[in-house]
Amino acid sequence: MRSWPTDRVALGGDYNPEQWPRDVWPQDVALMREAGVSFVSVGIFAWSALEPEPGRFDLGWLDEVMDLLHEGGIAVDLATGTASPPPWFSHRYPDTLPVTRDGHRLWPGGRQAYCPSSTVFRDHAVRLAETMAQRYRDHPALAMWHVSNEYACHNTPCYCDTCAAAFRDWLRRRYGDVATMNDAWGTSFWSQRHTTFEHVLPPRQAPTASNPTQLLDYRRFSSDTLLDQFLAERAVLERVSPGVPITTNFMTLSHFRHLDYTRWAPHQDVVSTDHYLVATQADPGAELSFSGDLTRGLAGGAPWLLMEHSTSAVNWQPVNPAKAPGQMLRNSLAHVAHGADTVGFFQWRASAAGAEKFHSALLPHAGTESRLWRDVVRLGEVCGRLGELVGSRVEADVAILWDYEAGWACDQPSHPSQLVAYGDDAHQLHATLLHRGITSDVVSPAADLSSYRLVIVPTLYLMTDAGAAAVTAAAQAGAQVLVTFFSGIVDEHDHIRLGGYPGALRDLLGVWVEEFNPLRENETVQLDDGSVGAVWSERLDLRGAQAVASYAEGPLAGVPAITRRDVGAGAAWYLATRLQGEHLDALVGRLVDAAGVSAPYDCPRGVELVRRTSGTASYLFALNHRDDEVTVPVTGHDLVADVGTDGRLVLAPGGVAVVRERR
Amino acid sequence: MRSWPTDRVALGGDYNPEQWPRDVWPQDVALMREAGVSFVSVGIFAWSALEPEPGRFDLGWLDEVMDLLHEGGIAVDLATGTASPPPWFSHRYPDTLPVTRDGHRLWPGGRQAYCPSSTVFRDHAVRLAETMAQRYRDHPALAMWHVSNEYACHNTPCYCDTCAAAFRDWLRRRYGDVATMNDAWGTSFWSQRHTTFEHVLPPRQAPTASNPTQLLDYRRFSSDTLLDQFLAERAVLERVSPGVPITTNFMTLSHFRHLDYTRWAPHQDVVSTDHYLVATQADPGAELSFSGDLTRGLAGGAPWLLMEHSTSAVNWQPVNPAKAPGQMLRNSLAHVAHGADTVGFFQWRASAAGAEKFHSALLPHAGTESRLWRDVVRLGEVCGRLGELVGSRVEADVAILWDYEAGWACDQPSHPSQLVAYGDDAHQLHATLLHRGITSDVVSPAADLSSYRLVIVPTLYLMTDAGAAAVTAAAQAGAQVLVTFFSGIVDEHDHIRLGGYPGALRDLLGVWVEEFNPLRENETVQLDDGSVGAVWSERLDLRGAQAVASYAEGPLAGVPAITRRDVGAGAAWYLATRLQGEHLDALVGRLVDAAGVSAPYDCPRGVELVRRTSGTASYLFALNHRDDEVTVPVTGHDLVADVGTDGRLVLAPGGVAVVRERR
Amino acid sequence: MRSWPTDRVALGGDYNPEQWPRDVWPQDVALMREAGVSFVSVGIFAWSALEPEPGRFDLGWLDEVMDLLHEGGIAVDLATGTASPPPWFSHRYPDTLPVTRDGHRLWPGGRQAYCPSSTVFRDHAVRLAETMAQRYRDHPALAMWHVSNEYACHNTPCYCDTCAAAFRDWLRRRYGDVATMNDAWGTSFWSQRHTTFEHVLPPRQAPTASNPTQLLDYRRFSSDTLLDQFLAERAVLERVSPGVPITTNFMTLSHFRHLDYTRWAPHQDVVSTDHYLVATQADPGAELSFSGDLTRGLAGGAPWLLMEHSTSAVNWQPVNPAKAPGQMLRNSLAHVAHGADTVGFFQWRASAAGAEKFHSALLPHAGTESRLWRDVVRLGEVCGRLGELVGSRVEADVAILWDYEAGWACDQPSHPSQLVAYGDDAHQLHATLLHRGITSDVVSPAADLSSYRLVIVPTLYLMTDAGAAAVTAAAQAGAQVLVTFFSGIVDEHDHIRLGGYPGALRDLLGVWVEEFNPLRENETVQLDDGSVGAVWSERLDLRGAQAVASYAEGPLAGVPAITRRDVGAGAAWYLATRLQGEHLDALVGRLVDAAGVSAPYDCPRGVELVRRTSGTASYLFALNHRDDEVTVPVTGHDLVADVGTDGRLVLAPGGVAVVRERR
Repeated sequence: MRSWPTDRVALGGDYNPEQWPRDVWPQDVALMREAGVSFVSVGIFAWSALEPEPGRFDLGWLDEVMDLLHEGGIAVDLATGTASPPPWFSHRYPDTLPVTRDGHRLWPGGRQAYCPSSTVFRDHAVRLAETMAQRYRDHPALAMWHVSNEYACHNTPCYCDTCAAAFRDWLRRRYGDVATMNDAWGTSFWSQRHTTFEHVLPPRQAPTASNPTQLLDYRRFSSDTLLDQFLAERAVLERVSPGVPITTNFMTLSHFRHLDYTRWAPHQDVVSTDHYLVATQADPGAELSFSGDLTRGLAGGAPWLLMEHSTSAVNWQPVNPAKAPGQMLRNSLAHVAHGADTVGFFQWRASAAGAEKFHSALLPHAGTESRLWRDVVRLGEVCGRLGELVGSRVEADVAILWDYEAGWACDQPSHPSQLVAYGDDAHQLHATLLHRGITSDVVSPAADLSSYRLVIVPTLYLMTDAGAAAVTAAAQAGAQVLVTFFSGIVDEHDHIRLGGYPGALRDLLGVWVEEFNPLRENETVQLDDGSVGAVWSERLDLRGAQAVASYAEGPLAGVPAITRRDVGAGAAWYLATRLQGEHLDALVGRLVDAAGVSAPYDCPRGVELVRRTSGTASYLFALNHRDDEVTVPVTGHDLVADVGTDGRLVLAPGGVAVVRERR
Repeated sequence: MRSWPTDRVALGGDYNPEQWPRDVWPQDVALMREAGVSFVSVGIFAWSALEPEPGRFDLGWLDEVMDLLHEGGIAVDLATGTASPPPWFSHRYPDTLPVTRDGHRLWPGGRQAYCPSSTVFRDHAVRLAETMAQRYRDHPALAMWHVSNEYACHNTPCYCDTCAAAFRDWLRRRYGDVATMNDAWGTSFWSQRHTTFEHVLPPRQAPTASNPTQLLDYRRFSSDTLLDQFLAERAVLERVSPGVPITTNFMTLSHFRHLDYTRWAPHQDVVSTDHYLVATQADPGAELSFSGDLTRGLAGGAPWLLMEHSTSAVNWQPVNPAKAPGQMLRNSLAHVAHGADTVGFFQWRASAAGAEKFHSALLPHAGTESRLWRDVVRLGEVCGRLGELVGSRVEADVAILWDYEAGWACDQPSHPSQLVAYGDDAHQLHATLLHRGITSDVVSPAADLSSYRLVIVPTLYLMTDAGAAAVTAAAQAGAQVLVTFFSGIVDEHDHIRLGGYPGALRDLLGVWVEEFNPLRENETVQLDDGSVGAVWSERLDLRGAQAVASYAEGPLAGVPAITRRDVGAGAAWYLATRLQGEHLDALVGRLVDAAGVSAPYDCPRGVELVRRTSGTASYLFALNHRDDEVTVPVTGHDLVADVGTDGRLVLAPGGVAVVRERR
Repeated sequence: MRSWPTDRVALGGDYNPEQWPRDVWPQDVALMREAGVSFVSVGIFAWSALEPEPGRFDLGWLDEVMDLLHEGGIAVDLATGTASPPPWFSHRYPDTLPVTRDGHRLWPGGRQAYCPSSTVFRDHAVRLAETMAQRYRDHPALAMWHVSNEYACHNTPCYCDTCAAAFRDWLRRRYGDVATMNDAWGTSFWSQRHTTFEHVLPPRQAPTASNPTQLLDYRRFSSDTLLDQFLAERAVLERVSPGVPITTNFMTLSHFRHLDYTRWAPHQDVVSTDHYLVATQADPGAELSFSGDLTRGLAGGAPWLLMEHSTSAVNWQPVNPAKAPGQMLRNSLAHVAHGADTVGFFQWRASAAGAEKFHSALLPHAGTESRLWRDVVRLGEVCGRLGELVGSRVEADVAILWDYEAGWACDQPSHPSQLVAYGDDAHQLHATLLHRGITSDVVSPAADLSSYRLVIVPTLYLMTDAGAAAVTAAAQAGAQVLVTFFSGIVDEHDHIRLGGYPGALRDLLGVWVEEFNPLRENETVQLDDGSVGAVWSERLDLRGAQAVASYAEGPLAGVPAITRRDVGAGAAWYLATRLQGEHLDALVGRLVDAAGVSAPYDCPRGVELVRRTSGTASYLFALNHRDDEVTVPVTGHDLVADVGTDGRLVLAPGGVAVVRERR
């Protein structure tokens, strides 16, 4: 078994040799070497090539590929090949096709057309994984197992009868008896009381709004049932090829939240993820960094593996612009800044056919004469110079709480305002800190919060008692805590915490809210400190807190909109509306000042500064998101340009540096 | 049996004790008394609690609730409990689930998941209704039966095979033989001629536009089939508990038109309805008053019962703002102004769980310390002072014709313009009169029109011969009649009345239209009197009428857009485009002047004035919809503030008064 | 058998006597004569009247109609009556109903509710066609057969099991063996390799993007399977009534591209088509002319038959404005200008019932007193004067390439930009030429290009080797060739032509593109010649071409956006972005100057000039699309106004003339 490259930041990507004639493969390996590619993920969508008929395996071509890669010194992240079943499978087992909420069956022709609960699928996947493990456990190119691919990207939730039965089993395990489930689901509402688990169904399309706790539990179940798929493959890999690290690539993207990665991460030997920029986002660069901080949080602070991103355009947006010159390098190093030790891409060679043929790759349609190829070669050189920071960790004094279950509950229908979308406040606050050069950890409410000086609780609609206690303890212990509206409203069953909002946090915050008054789209309300609220307002009484700012107009004129309460050695702040731009930045400024948190160096807004440290050294990542040149007063050696910086690192617009600091 | 409260305007709402522990129930009754609650509707969604297993009834808890309410002096509007079947029912009888137009089955998980035509459902509902009637017919708290709830809110139309068979039976009854149906449906078009009723289907999703008369008949059938459900429950209640009034709550909302309430109303002992404001409407307050006038029309002018509205926010809009201070009182009294003697709310206590937990209630999540609770208590006091007007009737000189069938036909696809939506003109003209302080009756074309001085016929696309004759007779008898465009176009089978539009009314109006020329979205056309038309224009010839205003530009320059013809003792006006704001107000001004109709008092625009009279007294409701203070020159006693008004009632912005007039 | 009228431009339309009582029919014929109607299409949707029960035919009423028409001297385009099956058919054979991509069955109630692949349908259709042919082959009114109607308008593609089986057969015929299909489809991508044709499915709704070549082949199959339906009817007509011309009406509309008419046209004895204006189009008049040029191209330059257009409003748009005064005449003559010798309408008499009752007709609801009727009578007079040009042909020096397959491939998802829609560039360039008074042929890439001085290749995403060679040969032979972006990208299997875009044309154009950079919606980029690009940009290197204009800003500043290369006796131009308005007009000006192409007469922009020539005469069609009066320096006789033009034809705004030129 080959160990994962650590003499460099590993560079590589998905390699799909089955799409190309055999004579291309040696050229591929030669070009990988030219580009400094140190790993590839092989076989992800090869099931139909690996098992062309039920039980007949054809691995000869893969033997050849593995040998070629080994000869070329390329480490292989070998897929179990189970990401998408072959046509014969769907034809033979049509009941394994997923079903939509309104009862459509989804058909083969794309990818991932299988029901997450299917044991028929699981048995076939495990058989293939075992075949792969038996064949390659001793192959010298094998460095890691890549189980399936982007679980839940397209097939979750499924509402078929198989899932219905599995959901009932899951509920029996969760609740024990049906009366407990009835209480948790609040089934006395709308005549939904069940007399037996046998009558329970997935939340299929109903004539009107479905039971909220049923919806929430179905998302929990859907995440868990795919985790079981993963664990079934993992078990056979561990048994047959012990010692080989196992991972599956997450999708820590702001628009993907089908899986509760908090529950998945402990089962990964190395946390890996995919990340793609969305052109319509307001601040795609900040979203990228958020993803990195979240992935690091899932990895418990350890370095992680960026399995996929793109060299340039993707193909699945309405309009897919190319990356600007320098952007591929900047994006890649941003991931490294936030904790990645590996930089992977989809894919090695751009496809000539199929649904992703217009997705960029390391080797484009145009070939090696291209600007893109030259940039890839340069990226390989930079990665080579970054070997010394592999294994180092990111420093952060700020925690932003992130919880998939809270998000699922928050984003349900029949809420006060559909303009309140989980993640918006988290991303906005994270970006505000980022543009100040301040790094945040994005962590679960169950994480250890004791080391943070600032703890942010953004739109954490659902909070357990333990979560609320942890936040309170952080404040008591000296942290500044900032809570934003629509947090702490319900318990884990999505039941209102009665007696005044925000039930789980009203004592901590010293406020009592009797009524929400969400603002209409594009409606704003003036505050008496000059700032402007949007999206939300509420009728709030002070019960121990002081007003920081109050509404200056409208039906809530005079009612506090921002409050603060001293708590133990720290303080609890509450933001009951949404601020934008400079107004939010000003509030964040007060918080970081109170918390004693600052950027590593003094810089204008818009320069991202992240520090990774090892036992022996520290590395400052500096990314200039501005349109003008900036100077960072850091002294050391910039590993990107391979030059010394004598207290004066000059960054062009869009420029990036990684400085081994001399302090 | 308890009689319905008449010593006061009854205040109350839905009470769902099954959602709360038993120890809450006595607190509920105590707080109801504190708030002046005089009735509650109980058991609406309790089927799964009342009949937890097929045929096993558990009514003990309800006995306890009924006794507690009786002890508290609260009248009970007792539900038959059949609004939504329990999970065991849907599991046992999956064919009772409704089916969408494109063939989806709709599943349990929300509410009302049953096929309107299902006799299986009907048998089970009747059995429960009979069980309830047997048990409570002699209970002293029982004051009224509440059958089902908001029929058709979510499950109509249904397109399942059961409905298909029921539709065929309905057609056999309507048409007798298939040739008559063929003629009515115009099946020679597009090869749709049927040889037997057996081949007829609901208008399920077709490759292109369905037969318009089939669509229209399906709406008629869908309304009738649910009416049969109601009548089946009504029959058993009448038999088992004779003398107890029976109702089901309508939904007289501008956006709800699934049922032809004109056909339903005669079967109600008291007409009751629900009303909710929609935040995105241009003039929600006017829509509320329209609903009241329509409900009163359905009740034949008699007082009616507002079964549900909301104390503050609802939960089913994209954004759900809270009601402004004073708005709950103003909305409640607006309903009373337009004829309600009862003011009900959904619901008594805000739910902690379920899809409506963010719907406001009389008792909010925050409890009795809240502003909302104080407003509820005040509303109870005001209702107590309004007992003397219970039973009085509303005065109106204006009739606005409203017809559900015409609306169904009007809003079909394949029409000249989808910008013409039934109800828009009716609401616009009603609001224009309302803002002038003039009250309208909203009545069926089959109503007695002889007492009205102004009759408005807004977008009455489908008109029967009888309807056209009644309007003509009204003009002959001295009324001013105003017809708006796209009226009188088709007969009851949706066949064009040939020979020039508007076929049913061209003689009355003295106009002949050869072609429609609908205006594009946001397109307008100037008229020669300075007003501006939108939405519609048409090529019109005068055939006896005079032009009031003509188009001043475009392809129809010089063609009349507004006409008037002397008819007997009255006149017939035609408005062939849509006017807005002051232009429409000016036209309405000419009409009311000609008709000799005026507001009870002289007031600025935007003050709603409605008079209710009894044999002995008259009551002026004055609602100030303006942003500034206004004065109404009325002398009497304001029952809201409980003070005299000496020819000078001062209303703050949003203020409301009910003045027992001294005239 | 009656011959088709050639003593005049034939005027007529769909005639549906089955919708009216018998006593109306003689009135119809009398009015047809009054209007100069010379043909009608009869029986298109009469199946349920012709065969009211399976196998029982009732043709007596049609005998009567045919006799009446013959007596009136009206030629009959007799339908086979198979456009829409009767209710009994769908009831007896429910499996013949079409199925949507997501698995809905589509139901009767509209029209065309049959699966295109159904042999059950085909057998019944052929039986009816044979019955009609047997009955009427010798009827003296019969002049042409009208097979079915607007094939594919609503029922294509269908995804049912019958289609699945038929698709597999089609694939077997196309590819021979499954390995060849796998290679063509690129099934190594996403694990889609098939081991047998038996597992192949239609591209039903999948969890994510379907295989692009599967999608493309399914469109090919869907067009071919309906062509087989047509050919089955054609075969029986040819056998039973040899010598009678056979046609089916195409829909050469910009928004209808379900059928590859290039493959259908050779099977028509006369190409016929329907055309309707779409009110939301930017330039509906130019779209009409494009349709005419395309239809003429399908007809190989021969005169064609306009089977349907509308006298005024249609009924299927959201808003359906009436035609302006004079527009019916102008539209009709525009079709004639572009090669039609027959002007047909839907329909003779406006329906009183059914889904199209608000569609205008020759005889409106209002009857013969109407302006519309007077305009129809006038149109009949004009058509009578145009007999001398029947059979003449249109002159054009410009070819615009049009390819249905390229369009299907271009408009798939997962492409660089969904803002690139097939046809947009073709229409825009065609309109720019039209407004300059220059006529274009719209032809297949397989057409003979040797006679054109300017060849335009707009967004021809998919190009075969033969297509690329033909374009190259045209340039070599002396034509100016203009290629627009996203042309020549893939081969007939939708595989990228590797090595730099645009693979099929990079040698001809002398450019090499390494990366696309599509522009966002509303994004523009300045060019260094003052023009402005939109929608698209790309990183282009010159490889033999010269830059005509380059980007002046953005990430591609300095990169050429418009290029030109000398090729043999001609030149190849490349437009790598989209220009608008005057900028595009300027480029077109350079091209036509280089090509030596010009309008027949010197006119301001916006005057459409088309010349039809016969052996003995030439006819100039002049249509003024401007808001002001224009003068065309033509000498001859205007057949519309029936007056001489002495070098000075004056056209009012919207005016139209047909001048027999004296040259």
